[in-house]
Amino acid sequence: MSSKVLTLINVFTVAPERQMELVHLLVRATNESVRHAPGFISSTLHRSLDGTKVTMYAQWRSREDYEAMRKNPAPLPYLERAFTFAKFEPGLYEVVETFSADKELIS
Amino acid sequence: MSSKVLTLINVFTVAPERQMELVHLLVRATNESVRHAPGFISSTLHRSLDGTKVTMYAQWRSREDYEAMRKNPAPLPYLERAFTFAKFEPGLYEVVETFSADKELIS
Repeated sequence: MSSKVLTLINVFTVAPERQMELVHLLVRATNESVRHAPGFISSTLHRSLDGTKVTMYAQWRSREDYEAMRKNPAPLPYLERAFTFAKFEPGLYEVVETFSADKELIS
Repeated sequence: MSSKVLTLINVFTVAPERQMELVHLLVRATNESVRHAPGFISSTLHRSLDGTKVTMYAQWRSREDYEAMRKNPAPLPYLERAFTFAKFEPGLYEVVETFSADKELIS
């Protein structure tokens, strides 16, 4: 496993009126700390159209790099504030397959 | 909303011993039907390292295109079989922000 890219899909559940507050906390945690960690490749933050979820989709070089970052206390103040009003469901994944649209239509 | 790309993050929960069976059903549904639908851009299928989840991350041109595909009965046999042993939590999202690693390290 450790030689493969790790994909993280972390789903936060939140009251719609606090969705943007959660977004801002996750943006600050990522910009000030997480994206500078060794092994971080990229991430994309999403907000659900119904207001009830915020999901971070991220790639890391390895599970070991991700777990080392989790031991860094710098992003904790943001995350602890988020956990006072949002539920968190983490997921560590590997990619199985990628699908494209029909190429005939554009070639 | 309709002018923005729609991101779908669909999380399936499953018993680890049936995770790969669920993966195969979702691969077939996507290859035989979903990826040929108008407005489908791309998708990536993931399996969780702990065996308990399978997550499809997909981009669609618009919410209208995605909803039109959902009315197509072709992928239903695969999905109905999946729903006999997996739980399904759909999510319709828009991207808030994308983060990259520090560029100084590689430039």
